[in-house]
Amino acid sequence: MKFYYVPGTCALASHITLEEAGADYTGVRMNFAEEEQKKPEFLAINPKARVPALVTERGVLTETPAILVYLCQQYPEANMAPLDDPFELARVQSFNSYLCSTVHVAHAHRGRGHRWADDPAAHEAMRAFVPKSVGECFRLIEDEMFEGPWVMGRDCTVCDFYLFTVTGWLEADSVDITTLPKIQNHYERLSQRPSVKRALAQEFA
Amino acid sequence: MKFYYVPGTCALASHITLEEAGADYTGVRMNFAEEEQKKPEFLAINPKARVPALVTERGVLTETPAILVYLCQQYPEANMAPLDDPFELARVQSFNSYLCSTVHVAHAHRGRGHRWADDPAAHEAMRAFVPKSVGECFRLIEDEMFEGPWVMGRDCTVCDFYLFTVTGWLEADSVDITTLPKIQNHYERLSQRPSVKRALAQEFA
Repeated sequence: MKFYYVPGTCALASHITLEEAGADYTGVRMNFAEEEQKKPEFLAINPKARVPALVTERGVLTETPAILVYLCQQYPEANMAPLDDPFELARVQSFNSYLCSTVHVAHAHRGRGHRWADDPAAHEAMRAFVPKSVGECFRLIEDEMFEGPWVMGRDCTVCDFYLFTVTGWLEADSVDITTLPKIQNHYERLSQRPSVKRALAQEFA
Repeated sequence: MKFYYVPGTCALASHITLEEAGADYTGVRMNFAEEEQKKPEFLAINPKARVPALVTERGVLTETPAILVYLCQQYPEANMAPLDDPFELARVQSFNSYLCSTVHVAHAHRGRGHRWADDPAAHEAMRAFVPKSVGECFRLIEDEMFEGPWVMGRDCTVCDFYLFTVTGWLEADSVDITTLPKIQNHYERLSQRPSVKRALAQEFA
């Protein structure tokens, strides 16, 4: 498999999952600053011009929640999701869906306002609102969603890798992680996990 | 099961799926205009104050992509997703994820700008941009993603019910559906499907 990523993006969640699974893959680092994602060679892989993209022998997969559960199914021995319990798996999917459709989107208004408005003043208004919107998302995760010791409870799942990825944006989003003790502790534990260290080492080598 | 929805929202995708499955459920219509979703009784069901929410005997499920695949797994005889093929299932999830995290989000900037900025001028700038952003999403679906005759190709899946739901917002978003012939034809076919008719009849009774 070939895995296309940009350091510092949500692709890290899939990257950690590949490492956790012990998957045989080649990482391909893209450069957003040079707009590599808009070049024809990459648009042929992902016409959405986004990362992550995972090229498998069957074809290309995009979108973090899809890649995460696919890898769980391909590497069941890594035990990264409750695959045999449809209700518990749906809880995993619900959490991942919240991260992609609400939390990541709130965060993206800091630097990608051009996706939703033309006016620079509107971009500035969006940027100013990010600490509030991202802060509210994480308050809900801390108070209502996080079961402990892992996101889903007893077992570490792909939700933990995805949450770790998004938590890594809090400082730049001006959300004080010390107000979120469960999430702060989770972030520190994940930082020490070998798969996380390997993925980060590759991204920032 | 109890299914909480608001007419005209993305909950319609789950509503159609419940009907297609022949599920035994009770629909509960919520009223956003009266802010019912922010009352303590509903926050106890879904602290995110959103629909859809599906109350099962095991607990509550939220987020459209999670509910859709859960229902596919609970009602395999309805044949609403390629459950036995992890790669094809990942393609289903990828499409659903694109709809929730990009297409629905683009649309939401028309009426829900308060989620991402305080400034009324910014809300206006967001609203003005919706035809462009939603239009670009649907152009990509029409040109790159839609396999035909159904979203995923040969078989009708939950992706079709979700796409139908989001396509229903195009007129209000000022995107001309006649420029999207595959999607227009798909919308017309789905409108005639008995499960779609039943879900719509309940929502707008």
